[in-house]
Amino acid sequence: MSTSGNCHKVRLLLAQLGTRYRWVEVDSAAGQTRTEAFLALNPNGKVPLIERGDGRVLTESNAILFWLAEGTPFLPADGWQRAQALSWMFFEQYSHEPYIAVARFIRGWTPPDSPRRQELPWLRERGHAALAVMERHLADHAWFTGPEYGIADIALFAYTAVAADGGIELSSYPAIGRWLQALRARPGFVAMSDPSPEVLRNFAASP
Amino acid sequence: MSTSGNCHKVRLLLAQLGTRYRWVEVDSAAGQTRTEAFLALNPNGKVPLIERGDGRVLTESNAILFWLAEGTPFLPADGWQRAQALSWMFFEQYSHEPYIAVARFIRGWTPPDSPRRQELPWLRERGHAALAVMERHLADHAWFTGPEYGIADIALFAYTAVAADGGIELSSYPAIGRWLQALRARPGFVAMSDPSPEVLRNFAASP
Repeated sequence: MSTSGNCHKVRLLLAQLGTRYRWVEVDSAAGQTRTEAFLALNPNGKVPLIERGDGRVLTESNAILFWLAEGTPFLPADGWQRAQALSWMFFEQYSHEPYIAVARFIRGWTPPDSPRRQELPWLRERGHAALAVMERHLADHAWFTGPEYGIADIALFAYTAVAADGGIELSSYPAIGRWLQALRARPGFVAMSDPSPEVLRNFAASP
Repeated sequence: MSTSGNCHKVRLLLAQLGTRYRWVEVDSAAGQTRTEAFLALNPNGKVPLIERGDGRVLTESNAILFWLAEGTPFLPADGWQRAQALSWMFFEQYSHEPYIAVARFIRGWTPPDSPRRQELPWLRERGHAALAVMERHLADHAWFTGPEYGIADIALFAYTAVAADGGIELSSYPAIGRWLQALRARPGFVAMSDPSPEVLRNFAASP
């Protein structure tokens, strides 16, 4: 799903690795992750996943990043540093994505009268808490993966870059702003696809 | 925090590895993860964490498991299998723990008139969805980590074993029942500490 940050992580790393792949668009907002064929690939009904030539499947965006990056400069070779990168990736899935990505989803992909909109103030509060943790790390580190850019940065970039879509402004996080800019300047960087005109209208019209 | 499944993961692996360590009890329910001293160790304010002799810190239970298990039989050496283990560990933190552990927390650690109790039916529904994904995997696999028992099993065991505390019964998941039993029979297995008498009373009294 091109407009999903979790899927974009995989596209961005594949682009930077120069790997050949075929992209199969699956729209979870249209129920396409709930079909029998999709659930046979991922019983948990979530994108992204990768399917290898021999049919073997790997699910969970951050596990996919880890597998693709092994043996490349995008994942540190040192065991302790590798664990630190994983720590940030678990932080992303537990303390960041459930707030920042979900606020964006509710604002863009649910109708203006959805009862889920009541969750937005709390999601934004928790999203800001995650951003504050990131800002603090960036005060004395250039990247999250280790001394060099890599998969923990890609994992955290995906939804941080579009936090404003959920009404979570980044203006009070200068170090995050510099980190986003440095990341966008990396060779092979690709931005996430724009959502549909309807979703863009929802972003513009929503409180 | 001895009654936290995320902390118990680390204790269980350390016991099975035979590693010497010092346990420092930190009660997040009593605000001890929000002190200045604790936030200096983990700005995200969560247990568990490990601190090495030289003061270096690693946070996030599943990243800690990965670091401790590297080079041991608890983590597969093969890169693809290692990524599959990580995939289950991300599943645990995103699709399992936020429902099964949170239902347990609300039922045991919030007062009977807490408005959070309204979340229980939805948390239980999502918890059962996660258990169904696990049951399906166990229909033709003995373990989650790979051909052998390891850290993905430890990660999923922690809160599955106490799902009933949150009102999520396991009786309709026979394969999960057999897996829990096989896991408890592993050498060096230790069970999670019982919660306080007050929490046990809450479990017994709550709908």
